[in-house]
Amino acid sequence: MTGPEISYAQAGVDIDAGERAVELMRSAVARTRRPEVVGGLGGFAGLFALEPGRWRRPLLAASTDGVGTKIAIARAVGRHDSVGLDLVAMVADDLVVCGAEPLFLQDYIACGRVVPERVAEIVRGVAEGCSLAGCALVGGETAEHADLLEPDAYDLAATAVGVVEADGLLGPDRVRAGDAVVALGSSGLHSNGYSLVRRVIRGRSLAEHVPELGRTLGEELLEPTRIYAKDCLALAAATEVHAYAHVTGGGLAGNLARVLPPTVDAVVDRSTWTRPPVFDLVARLGPVAPAEIERTLNVGVGMVAVLPDGAAAVRLLADRGVPAWVAGEIAPGSGRALLVGTHSD
Amino acid sequence: MTGPEISYAQAGVDIDAGERAVELMRSAVARTRRPEVVGGLGGFAGLFALEPGRWRRPLLAASTDGVGTKIAIARAVGRHDSVGLDLVAMVADDLVVCGAEPLFLQDYIACGRVVPERVAEIVRGVAEGCSLAGCALVGGETAEHADLLEPDAYDLAATAVGVVEADGLLGPDRVRAGDAVVALGSSGLHSNGYSLVRRVIRGRSLAEHVPELGRTLGEELLEPTRIYAKDCLALAAATEVHAYAHVTGGGLAGNLARVLPPTVDAVVDRSTWTRPPVFDLVARLGPVAPAEIERTLNVGVGMVAVLPDGAAAVRLLADRGVPAWVAGEIAPGSGRALLVGTHSD
Repeated sequence: MTGPEISYAQAGVDIDAGERAVELMRSAVARTRRPEVVGGLGGFAGLFALEPGRWRRPLLAASTDGVGTKIAIARAVGRHDSVGLDLVAMVADDLVVCGAEPLFLQDYIACGRVVPERVAEIVRGVAEGCSLAGCALVGGETAEHADLLEPDAYDLAATAVGVVEADGLLGPDRVRAGDAVVALGSSGLHSNGYSLVRRVIRGRSLAEHVPELGRTLGEELLEPTRIYAKDCLALAAATEVHAYAHVTGGGLAGNLARVLPPTVDAVVDRSTWTRPPVFDLVARLGPVAPAEIERTLNVGVGMVAVLPDGAAAVRLLADRGVPAWVAGEIAPGSGRALLVGTHSD
Repeated sequence: MTGPEISYAQAGVDIDAGERAVELMRSAVARTRRPEVVGGLGGFAGLFALEPGRWRRPLLAASTDGVGTKIAIARAVGRHDSVGLDLVAMVADDLVVCGAEPLFLQDYIACGRVVPERVAEIVRGVAEGCSLAGCALVGGETAEHADLLEPDAYDLAATAVGVVEADGLLGPDRVRAGDAVVALGSSGLHSNGYSLVRRVIRGRSLAEHVPELGRTLGEELLEPTRIYAKDCLALAAATEVHAYAHVTGGGLAGNLARVLPPTVDAVVDRSTWTRPPVFDLVARLGPVAPAEIERTLNVGVGMVAVLPDGAAAVRLLADRGVPAWVAGEIAPGSGRALLVGTHSD
């Protein structure tokens, strides 16, 4: 063999950087550990023991999602932990919608170049999100794709797995006319519609202080997604819940319609809440038509509970520090979610 | 409100294309269905019923991975189903290493632009892989990241979940001196080391017919990864297996060492097999040093079984159409995997 030899590292894959990233994330991951976790990072698979006898007919629930282009805001601001937390919110709160308790999560990070400190910062956010959702971070993958992504670019995805007793599965079958529709307030834009939001703010500085927001544009746009998992499980344990709808892509009406049987409508009254200023800002700067805003963004409601006793739910959620209110009701109809009225000021 | 309004579609997210992709993939996904799957695509989460009473102490196993830059070959050749199959191999065969039966899988596709036909082609490959591995495809996410990826670029990841009886968990604890090391032949490069391989073949045409391969370079480099899941489960059901090692990044020695206790070595004799020509080609074209080839590529062995009765394993695997041979043995030592001898011609 003659001439200089080619190594894997020269071909763009830095194994040492990957190993340093794993070392830097180890303590954050360890803090998410639940007693059911078997072994540690580094095995071929993450292992999680289902408590024998706890479930009579266990249904496993799984959700996979990313955080979309909110990552572009994180890169512009130079802060990478909050999108990790957003990532957990996207998948863990899709599980509790079925009534499932999130058990564990695995993450996937694709990046142009493995910068160990940045990967560890992302994973610290994922771990914090897992702690908030009550699930263990049992593994994941960091992939270096030098040809696909610019050196500082990255993408995130995760899969969360939960469990629910088969006869405890929530959803459309349980929803009936007369149920209350309880809205759980969002913390801001959460993690959907960022392609639209970024288009709207193009050319503006994220460091700009925006009086109506009371902070910079970057701070508002990076606000971590509220994670409802523990609150939804506590509510379902304390009172009868028929369905939850996680308000992500498709907006409030689009997602609420997903948990309606074809015999009822959900009627939501906008006058029951004040729309947070960031949504008005996006609408005005665009301009973006009102219907498009409501189809794309959460307009202040991140999760919806459908249940017989709305007042009890609002009290329980308030006690847990979650802003919540009765926003409407289920009426005889044809499976539609309708927004009526005008937001209060 | 004045002036032209901005819509989500104008901001780069084509919801209709996403829905068309889901329609195009529906029948392929349906073919992976197992009786335990509850509901269909479109719910907030994929649902899978664990058969009551089948497991006394069920351990859930989860693996997340991607296929790395093999996707660049798929794009260059214009064929997108085989990388979907590779993706399943990466994660499902990490589960059987623990003795776990793969139950279900979710995929994540990030692309610059959703081309419904291409997304459906990828998912058809994922579905075919799921059928080969015996697991159900219960959900996934296709994300359009116009600013992160070029229109025709995409990235793939998946998480597979399986289950194993707690006292059936395979691994280092069971391995002892005197065990046979049985090699299961790979189908080619599988899905690791493609950054190195692509660097080495830079400037060559993938349409070029390569006599020593008996086909074009593109055909060889896109060869789907062999999926061992059902074979490994059948072997463990028929005879005592102590450990499996899935040969991915890190190569044969690197992955075999992961399932060794600190009191033994694995001694693998290269003369027990002929290295497939693609590995010699990569070594020569680089040139790439022999140690670097063995650290980065599978050199013809995609899975290793460690067990008392090597001959019985080889017979059972041959009956199932899997090339397999006794490649070495476990000896007293210090946790090292050693490759000795020279490949036969």
